[in-house]
This record gives sequence, structure tokens and C-alpha cells, in this order.
Amino acid sequence: MEMTGTLATIGYGLACIGPGIGVGIIFGLGVQAIARQPEARGILQGQMILGMAVIEALAILGFVLAFIQAG
Amino acid sequence: MEMTGTLATIGYGLACIGPGIGVGIIFGLGVQAIARQPEARGILQGQMILGMAVIEALAILGFVLAFIQAG
Amino acid sequence: MEMTGTLATIGYGLACIGPGIGVGIIFGLGVQAIARQPEARGILQGQMILGMAVIEALAILGFVLAFIQAG
Repeated sequence: MEMTGTLATIGYGLACIGPGIGVGIIFGLGVQAIARQPEARGILQGQMILGMAVIEALAILGFVLAFIQAG
Repeated sequence: MEMTGTLATIGYGLACIGPGIGVGIIFGLGVQAIARQPEARGILQGQMILGMAVIEALAILGFVLAFIQAG
Repeated sequence: MEMTGTLATIGYGLACIGPGIGVGIIFGLGVQAIARQPEARGILQGQMILGMAVIEALAILGFVLAFIQAG
């Protein structure tokens, strides 16, 4: 048996590195912001979700790309 | 013996790097936020779980992808 | 079955690492800025969106490139 598989899985793996760290930074600093201003929780949470969405989209695009170009 | 195995396992390994760091940041800063505002523990914990879920999903998708495209 | 796939997916994966972390830093520090000055939310949010847009464009360019040069 030789080496098998598709480079698409490597691409998805790489595409997860940044978003994994990035969303972690958002929520990590976000909970600290909420702890500082609990009454502004709604506003802060909205920003956190917005940032999470645009970052998570990058990884999901990589997931889609892995299926499209699995070759 | 030649090199064997599938690239899918490498892809999953790469997909774990970011989420591993990211969830660490969330809970690390999260427990500090709870230590600062213990009375807001419920709110903070909810945000931490939410952030953890969306990040962990990336690594789980990589696990699924490794089975689909192991070749 | 041998190793398949295109290097284009790897390129996109690499192109996601920086933006994922970068947008995370923007929104992570951004929500902290909003928590510190909630009345300046509009101004801060505008800057966050601007920074996010120019960073996200890098990853989207990588996505487009992955289709153009999949070869």
C-alpha cells in the first residue's frame, strides 16, 4: 500500500488553524469584556457573534473546497 | 518499505492545532473573567460554552473529513 | 488509489491562517474597547468592520485563486 488520500484534507486542516485561534481570541476577550461591563452584554455578544461568523466562514469555505477539489 | 498511510490523518492533525489553542484561550481567559465577576458566572459560562462549541466543530469536521476522503 | 488533489487547496488553507487570527484579534480587542467606552460603540464598530473587510479580502482572494489555478 502506498500513500493515499487527497491534498484537500490537508487544505482543510490548514484552513482550521487560523479560525480556531481567532474565534478563541474573540470569545476569550469577549467574556472578559462582559465581566467588565455586564450591562452591555447584548451589544458585546452581538459583536462577538459577528466576528465569529466572518471567521468561521473561512473554515467552512475550506470544508466546501475540500469536497469540490478532492480530485 | 515505502511511505504508506493517508494524507487524511495529516489533515486532521493540522485541523486540531487551531481549535486546541483557541479553546484554551477561551477557557483560560474565561476562568479569569469568572474570578473577576463571580456573580456573573452563568452568563460567562454560557458564552464560553458557545465559543467552545463553534471552535470544536471545526476539528470534528476534520475528523469526519478524514473518514470520507481517506482514499 | 494514489495521492490526489490539487495544491490549490493547500494554498487556500495557508491563506486562512493569518486572516483567521487577525480578525480574531480585531474583534477580541474591539469588544474590550466597546466595554470600556460603550457610548462610542458606533465609531468603534465602524473601525472593526473596516479592519475585518481588508483582512477577510485576503482569504477570499485565496478562495478565488484556488478555483482559477486548480489545474
